[in-house]
Amino acid sequence: MKKLTSWLDIPADSDFSIYNLPFGIFSKKKGKTRAGIAIGNHIVDLAALAEAELIDVSPFVFRQSTLNEFIGLGKEVTNKVRLDVQGLLIDADSPLKKKPEILVPQADVQMHLPVHIGDYTDFYSSIEHATNVGKMFRDPENALLPNWRHIPVGYHGRASSIVVSGTPIKRPKGQLMPKDATAPVFKPSGRLDFELEMGFITGKNTQLGTSIGTKEAEDYIFGLVLFNDWSARDIQKWEYVPLGPFLGKNFGSSISPWIVTIEALEPFKVAGPKQDPEVLPYLKYEGNQNYDVQLEVALQPENGEEQTVSSSNFKYMYWNMAQQLAHHTINGCNIHIGDVMASGTISGKDESSYGSMLEISWGGSKPITLKDGSTRTFIEDNDTVIMRGFAEKDGIKVGFGEVRGTILPAD
Amino acid sequence: MKKLTSWLDIPADSDFSIYNLPFGIFSKKKGKTRAGIAIGNHIVDLAALAEAELIDVSPFVFRQSTLNEFIGLGKEVTNKVRLDVQGLLIDADSPLKKKPEILVPQADVQMHLPVHIGDYTDFYSSIEHATNVGKMFRDPENALLPNWRHIPVGYHGRASSIVVSGTPIKRPKGQLMPKDATAPVFKPSGRLDFELEMGFITGKNTQLGTSIGTKEAEDYIFGLVLFNDWSARDIQKWEYVPLGPFLGKNFGSSISPWIVTIEALEPFKVAGPKQDPEVLPYLKYEGNQNYDVQLEVALQPENGEEQTVSSSNFKYMYWNMAQQLAHHTINGCNIHIGDVMASGTISGKDESSYGSMLEISWGGSKPITLKDGSTRTFIEDNDTVIMRGFAEKDGIKVGFGEVRGTILPAD
Repeated sequence: MKKLTSWLDIPADSDFSIYNLPFGIFSKKKGKTRAGIAIGNHIVDLAALAEAELIDVSPFVFRQSTLNEFIGLGKEVTNKVRLDVQGLLIDADSPLKKKPEILVPQADVQMHLPVHIGDYTDFYSSIEHATNVGKMFRDPENALLPNWRHIPVGYHGRASSIVVSGTPIKRPKGQLMPKDATAPVFKPSGRLDFELEMGFITGKNTQLGTSIGTKEAEDYIFGLVLFNDWSARDIQKWEYVPLGPFLGKNFGSSISPWIVTIEALEPFKVAGPKQDPEVLPYLKYEGNQNYDVQLEVALQPENGEEQTVSSSNFKYMYWNMAQQLAHHTINGCNIHIGDVMASGTISGKDESSYGSMLEISWGGSKPITLKDGSTRTFIEDNDTVIMRGFAEKDGIKVGFGEVRGTILPAD
Repeated sequence: MKKLTSWLDIPADSDFSIYNLPFGIFSKKKGKTRAGIAIGNHIVDLAALAEAELIDVSPFVFRQSTLNEFIGLGKEVTNKVRLDVQGLLIDADSPLKKKPEILVPQADVQMHLPVHIGDYTDFYSSIEHATNVGKMFRDPENALLPNWRHIPVGYHGRASSIVVSGTPIKRPKGQLMPKDATAPVFKPSGRLDFELEMGFITGKNTQLGTSIGTKEAEDYIFGLVLFNDWSARDIQKWEYVPLGPFLGKNFGSSISPWIVTIEALEPFKVAGPKQDPEVLPYLKYEGNQNYDVQLEVALQPENGEEQTVSSSNFKYMYWNMAQQLAHHTINGCNIHIGDVMASGTISGKDESSYGSMLEISWGGSKPITLKDGSTRTFIEDNDTVIMRGFAEKDGIKVGFGEVRGTILPAD
């Protein structure tokens, strides 16, 4: 990959390198929302850039509360904007140099949900996670269900409760069935958990009754975010048979604010795990479809120091995004720009790479100790969970920033 | 209830009586979408009515592709519009009489989805349906799962594939596991089914972290529609463990175009079934919360006569809408104007009141015979399914019209 250098001061370890240039929605103090591209510690204000006629898109498209309209212009336009901005940041004689007001310090802004999310789907595509859950909740000898290696299992989640990084989440209350009890009780969840996931955001509408093949899937993926699928294990356990998770999940999911484009991640493609048995023809794919994205979860108690509790990687996924999208639409289900499709918890083989407290504490049986000496099996009130992720190769870094959320006590 | 008489010619058996006045979105030939109220065989064009200053709302609100903005004005406004229109249709000296262009024949319009649907939730609230399914798929002796009488079980569905009555649905293809097979096969669903449901449409936004009590639930319900939750039983059976229905459901759901307000249904409230064991405090409710709405499903083969295959009633529901909404939000899950919450299949005790072919044909073992002599266990290509519903009491009728859909062959 060709080395690129910007005239702008970009910290060497920044997630938002000249190779990344992710899209997001921000607002300055008391200002309106607008679209931007992250670069180092700054944001390129795309509305201002368009007003200055440095890119060939109507400023109107960037003066919105979401990126949906911009994404709807199609990859030809969105990729050109990204490459034009890259050019403006590289060019030593860039007209952008004379317009410092277009570069906004990230420290001065508030970030917002980047898209209006029409539908949200959550997959269950890590074989290590599905196996761990199967061992704990079902049969250790037959941990994976019979359909798991044939289907990228997924289910519909709640779009309304997806929030941007930094939004606090209140501990949910609900029905639980305590061990050995004969009737359910009502109380705040005692087994509140995170799930380390990534989500992709769709970039094109389809018509009901049509399908997307694995070969064309990338055309329908705008980009990716970090995704924390907060889960209340005790509520989930009592409610989920037979129709799946509901209140155990829909009290909140958090996403990182910057959408890293699938094009920026192209250099980090790697082969996925071998799929055995062979999948049905509509799920076959060509080339490398996994992505080497290093992921980390940190837990920070109130007024305490954060501590890494998981180091995982997006490349572990058994089912890749092309297969997920092909499966999701094989029955004719339509998609809209701004749908979110999350991966499911991303766990690796090693205990240190497990993507949820459920697995890390093995169902609550193995507490972990934090730097302040306190222990955790699940998330306590006022704990903050921070997920980070980046791809890196040959000195080139493309990162996601972080998704962060603090759990507030139940009312 | 006071008898009301309109100067307009309304067929005596019309679903859209002077007591009903449901809201919908229509367009005339080559015209733009606008909001209307159904009355007899006509539609009151609300944009035209507002332009003529016969109601006190900006015409802009009615010149939209959905009712969301109108509903967002709040019940004080939406109920007033409905009652003002009722007054204009009763008053012998009504200024509406001199403006016939405001009354559009229903035969001249196309109907559209009435709302932009943010999230769609499907409940599972008929004890007869849940018991029938449990008997067929699990244990006939313990058909109801342990959580069923404690929780209004629900799950998230796909909003993007909800279509308005009249939209054809293509038979979905997908993975199935044939009986005694060792590997799944890929083919069109052979067990395509309808589900007779009703759905309510929410009328108010809430904030994440807040809940709606059963007492205030009605304030959050704008109105109801008929809902056909098309289901591919063979796809569903193979995929649904452990995370619930996905491709077996999300290839399409059909709704009736007219939203009958909860206020119009008030006279038809009745007591629901006794709930035993007693429910947790947050699910307790006061007064009658079920609705006596007669429901019917007809099946019409291509070029054939339609035949009633089910006669059910919304009053059979074990869990009512107030309980569903209270449960859905007890964990802080937020709702938006235009969310759809469907009841789940509405079956009664009697075989003639079963709300799906799965139950009517008892898992495919008891075919029914149609008027043309053909038999059905599930829905065949080019069959049309029509659902109708109305409430009637003391000679007063409030109906839903119909939701209709034809199954097209798979590609």
